[in-house]
Amino acid sequence: MLDVAVPAEVAADLAAIGRFVAARGWVPATAGNFSRRIDAASVAVTRSGIDKGNIRPQDLIAVPLAGELPAGVSAETPLHVARYRRDAGVGAVLHVHTVAATVLSRADAAQGFVELDGFEMHKSLSGVTTHESTLRLPVFANDQDTARLAARIESALPAEPPVPGYLLAGHGLYAWGATMTDAQRHLEGLEFLLQCSLEERRLHR
Amino acid sequence: MLDVAVPAEVAADLAAIGRFVAARGWVPATAGNFSRRIDAASVAVTRSGIDKGNIRPQDLIAVPLAGELPAGVSAETPLHVARYRRDAGVGAVLHVHTVAATVLSRADAAQGFVELDGFEMHKSLSGVTTHESTLRLPVFANDQDTARLAARIESALPAEPPVPGYLLAGHGLYAWGATMTDAQRHLEGLEFLLQCSLEERRLHR
Amino acid sequence: MLDVAVPAEVAADLAAIGRFVAARGWVPATAGNFSRRIDAASVAVTRSGIDKGNIRPQDLIAVPLAGELPAGVSAETPLHVARYRRDAGVGAVLHVHTVAATVLSRADAAQGFVELDGFEMHKSLSGVTTHESTLRLPVFANDQDTARLAARIESALPAEPPVPGYLLAGHGLYAWGATMTDAQRHLEGLEFLLQCSLEERRLHR
Amino acid sequence: MLDVAVPAEVAADLAAIGRFVAARGWVPATAGNFSRRIDAASVAVTRSGIDKGNIRPQDLIAVPLAGELPAGVSAETPLHVARYRRDAGVGAVLHVHTVAATVLSRADAAQGFVELDGFEMHKSLSGVTTHESTLRLPVFANDQDTARLAARIESALPAEPPVPGYLLAGHGLYAWGATMTDAQRHLEGLEFLLQCSLEERRLHR
Repeated sequence: MLDVAVPAEVAADLAAIGRFVAARGWVPATAGNFSRRIDAASVAVTRSGIDKGNIRPQDLIAVPLAGELPAGVSAETPLHVARYRRDAGVGAVLHVHTVAATVLSRADAAQGFVELDGFEMHKSLSGVTTHESTLRLPVFANDQDTARLAARIESALPAEPPVPGYLLAGHGLYAWGATMTDAQRHLEGLEFLLQCSLEERRLHR
Repeated sequence: MLDVAVPAEVAADLAAIGRFVAARGWVPATAGNFSRRIDAASVAVTRSGIDKGNIRPQDLIAVPLAGELPAGVSAETPLHVARYRRDAGVGAVLHVHTVAATVLSRADAAQGFVELDGFEMHKSLSGVTTHESTLRLPVFANDQDTARLAARIESALPAEPPVPGYLLAGHGLYAWGATMTDAQRHLEGLEFLLQCSLEERRLHR
Repeated sequence: MLDVAVPAEVAADLAAIGRFVAARGWVPATAGNFSRRIDAASVAVTRSGIDKGNIRPQDLIAVPLAGELPAGVSAETPLHVARYRRDAGVGAVLHVHTVAATVLSRADAAQGFVELDGFEMHKSLSGVTTHESTLRLPVFANDQDTARLAARIESALPAEPPVPGYLLAGHGLYAWGATMTDAQRHLEGLEFLLQCSLEERRLHR
Repeated sequence: MLDVAVPAEVAADLAAIGRFVAARGWVPATAGNFSRRIDAASVAVTRSGIDKGNIRPQDLIAVPLAGELPAGVSAETPLHVARYRRDAGVGAVLHVHTVAATVLSRADAAQGFVELDGFEMHKSLSGVTTHESTLRLPVFANDQDTARLAARIESALPAEPPVPGYLLAGHGLYAWGATMTDAQRHLEGLEFLLQCSLEERRLHR
């Protein structure tokens, strides 16, 4: 295994997103995990079971994109690594557990996607320039074998996914972006859209 | 273009409203924008994509009310500028994205307004002195051409709108006031009324 | 009019409850008002329109319980004063605007009370020692003539109300207690009970 | 009665969980209580009526697991003590009052449990390794005689409960763990699951 240190700037970015997400209650019970690209060959991933509101440098592990995963990383590291391997333009991947994401991922699991239509917030997603659009946030069945799950997800996602995120049924939301700033904006935008969709279903049910 | 500096007092006011609104989660994913009048001829507007919880002087642009818009301002600047041009008494304009505003703006888009009836909170709006009143918060269809949208809104609004705000369908809430304090009170009052209306629809549906 | 100063301890108590309540979003748009007894003859009341999260000594007015109200006090001061006049054991009165209180006060206005049955949280109210009880939180019709409203409320309330609070329809929640600590506990307990009741109505509707 | 001091480390643990829980609004109106094991023979329990967001050493009482309860402890201390007596592996017990726990405990009181099925968050509970599981969170009828209630609960719980928590109907949630960290993770995980279940019932009702 490559022994790569996590650069201070990468650690600072991950600590900042951790504080943001923890303050919103999106990572209850030590759930959730975050990663950021270090360079073309490696990424930094949060360790399992850490306090997401206070991520210290020792809570991160540098993971080579080629070869075996080091010990101690989050069990969901294969889902992160698969995104970076698939797309050299991915700079950060974020995974959270929110009530809206969990509930809608189960409601729409059979359909395979949550449909979002006509929201101005669509424009929070890189490349979307108008609310006059219909977005489909994919929903994948959950699987404790995360290597197998990662392979299934990547084979289903197109090379350039129109929506920079997906749901795992009964589990939570993944979002990514070219930079941590983009990934955070996508995460916030998708979570807002899911909250709106959940409210509309309650109202019009 | 006029080269107007943003006075420190104006910048402080905009930074304060940014902290307030960001803390409530009303500007997810860098959404939303704020402005304050500098003088009869110009206003300060937030730049696009900034962190609303930490608005620095360089995040603001002075915009002349006559002539072309400078580069870098929020795409929704025409909606702000139109309010100041129309009414010399408008001192601040605030735009946020909340779940209640987004959901109700879509639910009542065809009707063209959200009706609010009999709430004590009506009195948070300047000029309203009793709960024994029926308010109509206008809802306008969204449009990515914000100059065209601004013209449509201003031609629909009376010279002295009874409610100091409107909704854009699927987009969010605009509110204004003679001062930043008034605009904030109107924003909070309207958002509270929308939350109550959303709850009542759930309950009595 | 008596010229009574507000003792520092009384001002500190009111500033503390203001911070608590503002942080929860229970006083949007400068709504709400608070008071605390100074002595047998006077109480301190918040001025109208102040920032409830930052109550300074100059934001308070000492109000004599006998005679005319001084200028500048909240329009709802008669409701506070009436409670202190009626019951020498009342030490603090708190009024907030929450979504649950507003919505349920309208839903149950015709019935004249919100019924609460079997909650452990009943025990947060002084004198209630078991969950095996049914509480009725009175709902009064709102009135902009607050002197007339106060007289109507006090004529309806028994000398020793079983529940230390009431709702004004479409307006909000009042709660009181022998001390500020008691009044805060009653406010929190009643608001929690209203939130539970609102959820149960949604669920079982 | 044994006169045991509360070690500083135990007091620090209880102060930290108090801040966490109070910030989330899970202990309104001085409700809720927390305990941590000191050693094989004694535990530290919060006193009645204290500010849970600011637990000081003097707000704790060391309680011997054998013999009579000291004066001043929370009325629900027998429920805590019974857990420690029953299972030497229990290191901390937490009790909170949340809206979701209160509402679901009443909705499912007759059935005697809240059923949770297929959530990834199941894995926040020690010993649960997959979402492909069905959990039953027990619901017990509330009782002001907490010694009698504790006996009833312990006779119903198996020696090794599959879920480290239970609900009291109309009252709230209890959760425990081998350490304070485990107990907190169980508390957060169960509360998240209850929130998801409440949302799903609203949606699919």
